[in-house]
Amino acid sequence: MDYAAATPLDPRVKKVMDEYLAHGSANPSGLYEEGREAKQALEDARKVVAGFIGAKAHEIIFTSSTTESNNLAILGAARANQSSGRHLITTAAEHVSVLNVFKQLETEGFEVSYLPVDKHGMVSANQVKAAIRPDTILVSVIFASNEIGTINPIKQIGEIIKQSKNQNALPVFFSDAAQAAPHIKINANNLGLDLMSFSSSKLYGPKGAAALYIKSGVKINPIMFGGSQENNLRPGTQDVSGIVGFAEAVRITSQERAREDGRLLVLRDKIIKEVTTALPEVLLNGPPPQKATEGRSHPQERLANNISFSVPTIKAEELVAALDEAGFALSTRSACDAKNPTPPHVIKAIGRSDEAAWGTVRITLGRYIKEEDINQFIETFINIIKKLKK
Amino acid sequence: MDYAAATPLDPRVKKVMDEYLAHGSANPSGLYEEGREAKQALEDARKVVAGFIGAKAHEIIFTSSTTESNNLAILGAARANQSSGRHLITTAAEHVSVLNVFKQLETEGFEVSYLPVDKHGMVSANQVKAAIRPDTILVSVIFASNEIGTINPIKQIGEIIKQSKNQNALPVFFSDAAQAAPHIKINANNLGLDLMSFSSSKLYGPKGAAALYIKSGVKINPIMFGGSQENNLRPGTQDVSGIVGFAEAVRITSQERAREDGRLLVLRDKIIKEVTTALPEVLLNGPPPQKATEGRSHPQERLANNISFSVPTIKAEELVAALDEAGFALSTRSACDAKNPTPPHVIKAIGRSDEAAWGTVRITLGRYIKEEDINQFIETFINIIKKLKK
Repeated sequence: MDYAAATPLDPRVKKVMDEYLAHGSANPSGLYEEGREAKQALEDARKVVAGFIGAKAHEIIFTSSTTESNNLAILGAARANQSSGRHLITTAAEHVSVLNVFKQLETEGFEVSYLPVDKHGMVSANQVKAAIRPDTILVSVIFASNEIGTINPIKQIGEIIKQSKNQNALPVFFSDAAQAAPHIKINANNLGLDLMSFSSSKLYGPKGAAALYIKSGVKINPIMFGGSQENNLRPGTQDVSGIVGFAEAVRITSQERAREDGRLLVLRDKIIKEVTTALPEVLLNGPPPQKATEGRSHPQERLANNISFSVPTIKAEELVAALDEAGFALSTRSACDAKNPTPPHVIKAIGRSDEAAWGTVRITLGRYIKEEDINQFIETFINIIKKLKK
Repeated sequence: MDYAAATPLDPRVKKVMDEYLAHGSANPSGLYEEGREAKQALEDARKVVAGFIGAKAHEIIFTSSTTESNNLAILGAARANQSSGRHLITTAAEHVSVLNVFKQLETEGFEVSYLPVDKHGMVSANQVKAAIRPDTILVSVIFASNEIGTINPIKQIGEIIKQSKNQNALPVFFSDAAQAAPHIKINANNLGLDLMSFSSSKLYGPKGAAALYIKSGVKINPIMFGGSQENNLRPGTQDVSGIVGFAEAVRITSQERAREDGRLLVLRDKIIKEVTTALPEVLLNGPPPQKATEGRSHPQERLANNISFSVPTIKAEELVAALDEAGFALSTRSACDAKNPTPPHVIKAIGRSDEAAWGTVRITLGRYIKEEDINQFIETFINIIKKLKK
């Protein structure tokens, strides 16, 4: 129940990768038949991955992880446009692979506005509008929270940014869509996005493959230097079998996403309802399970697979350990942030106490979770909390 | 015959990866059984990869490619130590993923000395000694050339650098060992190396996995920012199945390298002898096939699998295309540099004319090449050159 940390490799994806690997191992830059075949497989995959977010193939570059895509997008856009200004905007509820990139840019002389989020973890288009200055070159807003599942009003923010763009088409609008892509049908261009990251490893594809969408005409600097692969923006031989798997993962997600999200919504809401009814002290972090208001980019304000509970009376690590012993795998916070000695910043950003933040567990559902697992989980979860309270 | 560009995935490596993937998909930062198992697999692999170069496990960090390792090593060491000086040393015969990183550092205000190489593509320890200044913070010398197979006197250079180190243990000594690792038994510490890169993808392991050796105590800055993975130097969820495959690839190479190199040497020298006898105008680039002189880190001066021929009377692209039609895959230059409109810089660095540089082909042998392939290749190669000359 930690699908936000990693999704298992779908056997259908594995099969396609195995088929590719049975004959394909050449370097796609090779000037011979095997090289051309690898290049063709790479470019076919690029079309599929681009189509997944309504982009053109040349607007997609492949990287090794969302973390790398986030770094390339943010460092790349900031450094490439610094002659036009050095003010950046992001939110207080980003993933660490965004937040820590902005911390780095502060050491390089950039000024960063961290927009506070509301009690559900959301930023508004009006907040972004108010924060944009003539020297703002980049706005970065997480599409959907990895911790508490909040889906931000990306479309509205995109419209505000479009209206605010200067003659250099700045600020650039970036979103980390790693957690959104498995659940939300995204058309990056229609949403006003200039840059967007997402990853195979959250879509039941192989680890080590991810994408960065770069809208035609948007300028970023590379963060690594070497060969001319990936339009001179990401050097190094491409992992074609991983990218082929990424494309297959994307194809399956496109086909099954709507139906699967409907299924997960029901399971999610069942857990929320039964746990909060049995244990009134358990707080749900993030938006309540309900339809979104008009004009949102998604009919819900919360990811279909995400539950975040704060249980102020217990320590989350003890709860997670007891659940692990009972056979349930879930997490206290972002896996990437697991070693952080301070309370989870997203939980603090929505106004929870330190006590509640340290009592926070994240439950994220996915493709191989069945209804009977949920029933068993709810019972175990409630019983363990009751026992820990004693 | 382009094993320097990419090696096929060894079926034994594939098997180990498949076994891991059959149960392992968790994030190694997960606080539950599956996460701990992934973490254990990751750390077991780290020990194996470290042992391959005589290092300790904590001295190895995993990256996605040699290109990334090279960037992290060079950008990281230069930026971390710039308060001690801004002079860097490298050679004129590096891979583009080293050369272009130094070009980047020049734009950041660093001064770079590019040491010329001799007619065989080699730099000497004396050249390095003469170039080191009080403000030199980094020396980067390719272990073995990806283009012409030259093995540099890394041990001698390492001794010179050790003797030249100041109170801050600078300059730091880095080597790109991507092409050396498949052929040369390396003890990084004994060679005086502070940083060294190598990759799974040149060792019949999966693409997307590579290592950077960072000697205990050597300071580098990260180039990406996010989670605390890989000792805070390389954020992002590790691709554990790829890393498990990397470790198996390393294990097989350790066992088979000496015997396999003996086999490849014979095939290599047969091609060199028969081609240059039949076609006296064909020039061998790189050291002649012979034993190295005393005090070298390797008994040969040329990689067992590398042949680089310049055929001044023909265009290499036509030769490669004709060989492709005849069923032989080989390259004109580094795959990473395939789109470069200027003549191959390594061939120019050893003093060849533009004409000879444009007539250069690289033949690199490996695990699945048999003697009968070589016999057929020699005949075809000679015949095609004779035909192209007409």
